[in-house]
Amino acid sequence: MIIFSERLNGMYRDVRTAIAERNKAVIQDLARRQLDGGADVMDLNIGPAPGDPVENFLWLARTVHELTEKPLSLDSAKAGLLVEVVPRVREALPETRLVINSCTAAPDYLEKLLPLAARCGTGIIGLTMDQEGVPGNVEKRVECGAAFLMAALEHGIPIEDIYLDPIVLPVNAAFKQQQYVVEAIRQLALVNDPPPRFIIGLSNVSQKCLMNRLLNRTFLVMCLAAGLDAAIMDAADEELVEAMISAEVLLGKHLYSDDYIKAWKLQKGLPAAAK
Amino acid sequence: MIIFSERLNGMYRDVRTAIAERNKAVIQDLARRQLDGGADVMDLNIGPAPGDPVENFLWLARTVHELTEKPLSLDSAKAGLLVEVVPRVREALPETRLVINSCTAAPDYLEKLLPLAARCGTGIIGLTMDQEGVPGNVEKRVECGAAFLMAALEHGIPIEDIYLDPIVLPVNAAFKQQQYVVEAIRQLALVNDPPPRFIIGLSNVSQKCLMNRLLNRTFLVMCLAAGLDAAIMDAADEELVEAMISAEVLLGKHLYSDDYIKAWKLQKGLPAAAK
Repeated sequence: MIIFSERLNGMYRDVRTAIAERNKAVIQDLARRQLDGGADVMDLNIGPAPGDPVENFLWLARTVHELTEKPLSLDSAKAGLLVEVVPRVREALPETRLVINSCTAAPDYLEKLLPLAARCGTGIIGLTMDQEGVPGNVEKRVECGAAFLMAALEHGIPIEDIYLDPIVLPVNAAFKQQQYVVEAIRQLALVNDPPPRFIIGLSNVSQKCLMNRLLNRTFLVMCLAAGLDAAIMDAADEELVEAMISAEVLLGKHLYSDDYIKAWKLQKGLPAAAK
Repeated sequence: MIIFSERLNGMYRDVRTAIAERNKAVIQDLARRQLDGGADVMDLNIGPAPGDPVENFLWLARTVHELTEKPLSLDSAKAGLLVEVVPRVREALPETRLVINSCTAAPDYLEKLLPLAARCGTGIIGLTMDQEGVPGNVEKRVECGAAFLMAALEHGIPIEDIYLDPIVLPVNAAFKQQQYVVEAIRQLALVNDPPPRFIIGLSNVSQKCLMNRLLNRTFLVMCLAAGLDAAIMDAADEELVEAMISAEVLLGKHLYSDDYIKAWKLQKGLPAAAK
């Protein structure tokens, strides 16, 4: 599975403050913990940090890139901001793989972001929603996901750079929506051969829930069994990562060995493997 | 989910010795722990205990029934033994729901056990295998499961009393077979409307594995997401039961509340709910 780190997000006060104060140590410490836990892609979201958003994004990207050459996921719901930020990051870090997070199937998003992804050679995440908002069922998720996928392919974006995000909603506020996400992954996997990649924002499922870590790891395993490829998740949550590796072993994606968790860490060159 | 207790099995030395010595306290203590953890059905297997197997089974059934009126699952791979035992237990405990565990799709099993289940009004578990042994793929599991299901329906057994067991093999010995189990459940759920019930012997997945409890709870969540209804499992493994309840909440089978684990225990009248 491809782990997108979830912690470098201006929605967290420490990150917001660090961006405002250009405090590299705070950002790099958080990034290091995600990397040590096994993060493959660094998701960056400036959130409501004060100051110029484009400059904030550039600073955040450079600060994380100082630490790691891993791909960066540029995360914003504002298509206009992404249109400004992506070419700047591409220019500043020409060798770094980038992912645009995220587009939707709404025409104004597609028109702005698909040509951008094609031109800058980035991956792109498409939320399975359109101008009408987040779907409350499987069918509309599949419809929006298929529409985004077809449009992305038409723009010449390679299938392996296309991610669909079926939009996870909190179980305490949108009960029953979680199974629709699982079912949408299963159905959308049949729309194209080879299928696109599937990604979720995992911790949405347990937003403001008491047993959030238990809910997160249980939902991740359910989605992996349905065909999930990636998640924006807390790579520093060891129990979560262990559940993920176990699910992948049971799905035949990693060889079983008596210490398969350590084997996974060794293979990724993680410091925890030395324990 | 329907929890079949897994611990009252003569494969465990303490149970085997207790059966041989007619030591009720040992059996009832183990049974109590399974009940306190949330077991719905008590699976009984005399294993290789010395003495007359029919008398051993009867004693074990009566001993557990002294403690609980829950249904009993009479567990043996020997069809000839089940043919002798089931009518005796039915006679001794006329009010108790019984499940025959297990039949297969092999003709000599079907001929012996389906008329028995129909006559004694018991549930019955059909392993998805036939005289050729355990299938190494999805297709043969589906073929055997469908054959068993059709034969059971022809014998007039109600669909809600029919369980299919897609045969879980250990991940350290039969790598990749685990995903075939998950896929067999998905495909067999489409064979009849309403579908039969699906059950697995959960701890088979981690037999002689070091991280057996982590593997068990991960695999249970994967199977639940595919449509599993029941498992023979250790109800006294609290983390396992918590993963199960969380998966059911995420599948929309229990209402979410901030303390949904306690709510589940309260609803079942379990002593742990008082904590």
